[in-house]
Amino acid sequence: MAAPVTIALDAMGGDHGPSVVIPAAALALVRHPNMRFILVGDQAQIEAELQGHAELAAKSEVIHSDVAIAMDAKPSQALRRGRWKSSMWLAIQAVRDGQAHAVVSAGNTGAMAMSKFCLKTVKGIDRPAIAAIWPTVDAECIVLDVGANVGADTRQLVEFGLMGAAMARALLGMEKPSIGLLNIGVEEVKGVEQIREAAAVLKSAPLPIRYHGFIEGNDIGHGAVDVVVTDGFTGNIALKTAEGTAKQIAQYLRAAMGQSFLSRLGALLAQGAFRALKEKMDPRQLNGGIFLGLNGIVVKSHGGTDETGFASAVDLAYEMAFSGVVERLGADVAHFHEKLELDGAA
Amino acid sequence: MAAPVTIALDAMGGDHGPSVVIPAAALALVRHPNMRFILVGDQAQIEAELQGHAELAAKSEVIHSDVAIAMDAKPSQALRRGRWKSSMWLAIQAVRDGQAHAVVSAGNTGAMAMSKFCLKTVKGIDRPAIAAIWPTVDAECIVLDVGANVGADTRQLVEFGLMGAAMARALLGMEKPSIGLLNIGVEEVKGVEQIREAAAVLKSAPLPIRYHGFIEGNDIGHGAVDVVVTDGFTGNIALKTAEGTAKQIAQYLRAAMGQSFLSRLGALLAQGAFRALKEKMDPRQLNGGIFLGLNGIVVKSHGGTDETGFASAVDLAYEMAFSGVVERLGADVAHFHEKLELDGAA
Repeated sequence: MAAPVTIALDAMGGDHGPSVVIPAAALALVRHPNMRFILVGDQAQIEAELQGHAELAAKSEVIHSDVAIAMDAKPSQALRRGRWKSSMWLAIQAVRDGQAHAVVSAGNTGAMAMSKFCLKTVKGIDRPAIAAIWPTVDAECIVLDVGANVGADTRQLVEFGLMGAAMARALLGMEKPSIGLLNIGVEEVKGVEQIREAAAVLKSAPLPIRYHGFIEGNDIGHGAVDVVVTDGFTGNIALKTAEGTAKQIAQYLRAAMGQSFLSRLGALLAQGAFRALKEKMDPRQLNGGIFLGLNGIVVKSHGGTDETGFASAVDLAYEMAFSGVVERLGADVAHFHEKLELDGAA
Repeated sequence: MAAPVTIALDAMGGDHGPSVVIPAAALALVRHPNMRFILVGDQAQIEAELQGHAELAAKSEVIHSDVAIAMDAKPSQALRRGRWKSSMWLAIQAVRDGQAHAVVSAGNTGAMAMSKFCLKTVKGIDRPAIAAIWPTVDAECIVLDVGANVGADTRQLVEFGLMGAAMARALLGMEKPSIGLLNIGVEEVKGVEQIREAAAVLKSAPLPIRYHGFIEGNDIGHGAVDVVVTDGFTGNIALKTAEGTAKQIAQYLRAAMGQSFLSRLGALLAQGAFRALKEKMDPRQLNGGIFLGLNGIVVKSHGGTDETGFASAVDLAYEMAFSGVVERLGADVAHFHEKLELDGAA
């Protein structure tokens, strides 16, 4: 059996706290029995939830915290108010102190600021990013930044590319991931200056990547590249627009299938197919933004998700830890800067 | 019968030229018999295509041009090379000279630069924008800018709002359209400076609009607002991401329905529902970017579209002309600036 992987969970995070986090952990444990947990939050509440989950209880350590950060607190407030005692901080700290391999929180968006403060940014990286796993027609790709920063200069875009590629290599097992820069036209001349400059750097980056070129919005889901690089503003809007469109089409489909006797009968016969489709389109399957560029693995779950969704985020944290993404990323970034310096000196 | 509306068509534009443009015009004419056409392009080719369309031939005037602008020419080239003689230029000119109420081209993206040069920007507007009609769960909304500019400052975002609202009032018949600013979070504090400033101006704009607030990517298709305001970079990526997602889900759906005997039988019984869904999701139904802020109506069709798609763009040009969008827009902008000056003077 594989060596244990310990995941710290902010049990108080999200709209539902321990009542979702604990059952989700139990669900994830069934899939990965070598997981161990550090559950941070109100001890009484956590222990009450653990009642029905003996296996999980046996593999968990509880760290008490009676401070939870409100979901609607501003990131700056999340950093100020009772930071040192909050369940979110203590869970992140468990990663910093080597007690856990990764942390998952469905808490306030201040999680990014707090993680950065606690874990620090990887040497050689200017700004961490939030990466999302995006389903494509045949597989999936990695899109970043989806919201850690509101903009990105050339250096940051290049670093997003390096980090996304390191993640693709470690997590998705790709030897030489392809990278595309999101732009509003595929011709070389198009788009804003920092994107054109990032293209020039990525094209000749001394790393096992294939720079593909510019891609447009419709190329993401088509699977044109393994790693999509964009600034956090654009990436966030693209991601949420895709989620909204998927939901909208699901509504159309439901309405169309209910419109006549024949269509209802047809839908009944095809219910297996609809179930498969629903599962494929279920946003809970790929729940979790991954903070990349920190000295540790942090997965941020949607705040409003349920057990299934939170368990997906726990799975993701497990896979990130298991595949050694942080080490891969650190090595790639060091190599990149070393080569650049050598080239500069030559 | 309503007074005739004359549409100028760049018959040589798009991937297929007259072989798509002429049949598409015939199709649109069936729906709006009071349309007249000015067909600009190679006379021999146009007349050959008109053979089978007596009704259209009778209601059309042909203007000969043997210069077509290559689809892959850069916008700057489109403006330089043989501009004065090209089918695109002559078609736009017909609007400038009052011979046509609107122009439709499936040609090169240089159409925007050329239209701006020929028709000039409406007084009081800094930058024209491209507006798209975006299907929502229950109706449709207007999104702009979807690609005329790569960025937008505060003034331009406000103007996009005014123009979008004028279009919603005229074209969609809304008395007091709601406006949302696309952002990466709905809280007041979020997002970049120019978006926050635009919000402050729109909130108190002396026009019959309802300023809704910030919206996120998923709110567009949900129909949260009537007019979505964003910069051309973000808008273009959001639009293409939504198109790509719709296509991707259609592929999932086809694959799911073909997976077993029962699902295929179900799909057969529900084929009426699938046809309705397909039609609702057909990107050809809403083909056409509208150039807003010019002294004339220009609709840019997708270059690769077919008869059905180009005919939709012609319908759109007709409706834009018929509803008096340009006049509405000019009046709203003038009123807005007048009020601001009065307020400034007070």
